[in-house]
Amino acid sequence: MPSNNDHHPPRGRAGMREVADRAGVAMSSVSRVLSGHPDVSPQMRVTVLKAVDEIGYRPDMLAQGLRSRRTLSIGFTVSEIANPVMSGIVTGAEKRLRAAGYSLLLTDSEGNPDLDVEQIHLLEQRRVDGLVLALADEHHPGTVRALQELDLPVVLLDRDVPAGVDARVARFDHYEGMSAATSHLLDLGHRNFALIVGGPRLPARERRRGVDETLERSGTGATCTVFDGEFSSRFGSQAVAEMMGASVCPTAIIAGGNLLMEGALRELHRRNVRVGAELSFVGCDDVALAELHDPPIAVVDRDVQAIGAAAADLLLTRLADRGDEDDPRAMDWHTDVQDVVLPTHFVRRASCAPAPTPR
Amino acid sequence: MPSNNDHHPPRGRAGMREVADRAGVAMSSVSRVLSGHPDVSPQMRVTVLKAVDEIGYRPDMLAQGLRSRRTLSIGFTVSEIANPVMSGIVTGAEKRLRAAGYSLLLTDSEGNPDLDVEQIHLLEQRRVDGLVLALADEHHPGTVRALQELDLPVVLLDRDVPAGVDARVARFDHYEGMSAATSHLLDLGHRNFALIVGGPRLPARERRRGVDETLERSGTGATCTVFDGEFSSRFGSQAVAEMMGASVCPTAIIAGGNLLMEGALRELHRRNVRVGAELSFVGCDDVALAELHDPPIAVVDRDVQAIGAAAADLLLTRLADRGDEDDPRAMDWHTDVQDVVLPTHFVRRASCAPAPTPR
Repeated sequence: MPSNNDHHPPRGRAGMREVADRAGVAMSSVSRVLSGHPDVSPQMRVTVLKAVDEIGYRPDMLAQGLRSRRTLSIGFTVSEIANPVMSGIVTGAEKRLRAAGYSLLLTDSEGNPDLDVEQIHLLEQRRVDGLVLALADEHHPGTVRALQELDLPVVLLDRDVPAGVDARVARFDHYEGMSAATSHLLDLGHRNFALIVGGPRLPARERRRGVDETLERSGTGATCTVFDGEFSSRFGSQAVAEMMGASVCPTAIIAGGNLLMEGALRELHRRNVRVGAELSFVGCDDVALAELHDPPIAVVDRDVQAIGAAAADLLLTRLADRGDEDDPRAMDWHTDVQDVVLPTHFVRRASCAPAPTPR
Repeated sequence: MPSNNDHHPPRGRAGMREVADRAGVAMSSVSRVLSGHPDVSPQMRVTVLKAVDEIGYRPDMLAQGLRSRRTLSIGFTVSEIANPVMSGIVTGAEKRLRAAGYSLLLTDSEGNPDLDVEQIHLLEQRRVDGLVLALADEHHPGTVRALQELDLPVVLLDRDVPAGVDARVARFDHYEGMSAATSHLLDLGHRNFALIVGGPRLPARERRRGVDETLERSGTGATCTVFDGEFSSRFGSQAVAEMMGASVCPTAIIAGGNLLMEGALRELHRRNVRVGAELSFVGCDDVALAELHDPPIAVVDRDVQAIGAAAADLLLTRLADRGDEDDPRAMDWHTDVQDVVLPTHFVRRASCAPAPTPR
């Protein structure tokens, strides 16, 4: 029987194998003892615990050994808890996961990718069975590394999958809704656009692409100034302040995100700019602010509960694929389940009006 | 040396005492072995693990034994993640806890007290060091029982402390702001009020008391119809629909909560009721919807980040009081730290106008 001669005590599954060999029992027996399975004889328990000690299998690994037992909890990292649609997404995911017997543990990254990395490790240590990640920045090197090293099924929410990462994705087709909004503004005669986007993430990139390519395809010669910053209400206000100070003011503003919309509208109010008269405006997400604004704000809307449910379903499929966790061969969840793309759609409202005739 | 003769194997600290007695070692040694402390001799480890097994101390308790080691994480149960001020509260708490080296694990109870109980147990199992609880209903019997049995420092957020529960509280003085709003409406000549409140919790009770007592004290003979239901946007709409269908319409509506305000305004919009002209309106929390509404909505406001920070500070004080967790005598955190009450204040705006002269 091989024994462990390394200076460092063994960790993880490698350590479990050593324990099994030393005790002369099957790995599934080691797993049963460490996970507190009720059908274990006292003799087996003594044998395994003795081997655990003799081999120097770290006691803090006992907790990790418990990992093989499902905890029926799922971790969900939220990029910005201030994002008003996040509650809908979480609710959509939670209902679906709860129906399958899972609880949800949430963390907030405050838009900071370094915190994403911390939260992923925190949730992993808390032995969640899987992760839904609305990352602050999916291409942040630390995040990519954490994802590559992760030994859990993962679903990314509205993000690209970085190279070398095994994850499924539930995302929106931001391009389509933004393209429709841009076409509508072009039809109303607008040729001078401003676009506010925020966050180094898929939604910002796709929203921008939707506006840029639609303007280019139109052959109208319309121009667009892009304000690209952090995804926050503050940046929305700041972008409007900047564009209003420029020599040529846009006739149409598109705010590519709900917090950016909120900030932009706040600054327009402060300047007494009459939206829908002096200036056309398109926002994102049909939140109460857009719906009850005077005039109502045209938005690119989406079903946020549906994406939460879709992310949950993808994760549940991957978890089901794990099969019997006592059998190491069944621990592979890298199956071919398809990513999900949900539509966005443009809601026309009085905040969009014909462009003023050129002076 | 006493041994365990019960049918059920011992649990928790009681079990640790049995293990210590059986092994003939100090409880702190048992704690050290179970928590993976590096300074434990192989001999001590074998002795303790043998006693663990002989006594039938459940292997799944090994994980609980690890609890005595701090995990530097705090659990935070959110009653409704859809509540737009919750993000501010969480952010306020998170900044303070992070500065002290703690991470935050959040759960959402969807306003369902049974889920509160589940989440409390879930977070306890995940070995958080303490809890901040924004409970769905602090007097729900299951919740009270869970709180009474809880062996962790707890801070309740804007809730009463049920009998027999050891918890500190960070809360708002809802009475004061509501009383000021009511006085303002009385000064404007209003005598026929409607109040919408929701949720079986401290804020609803205190807001209602603020309105009721102020009306009574005024000696004006003013009346108030109270609509008391769930804390949701939907109930806000429903309450307005009901009061508009009644034989006598109120001239002033007070919505005791941000989601209730949102729903009430939605229904008023739907009915084309001109707020500030036909009807005066007071809401809660200075969210973007209130600030950017036309006319702007008068609100009872409060510093939500400050209450999050206050709750975190209370918890950190209690955690510091625990001292050395290897010493059972130092595990008592039931100290006399004071509860915190933060002010609310009324923000006058154009949604409040003189009462129409009686027809």
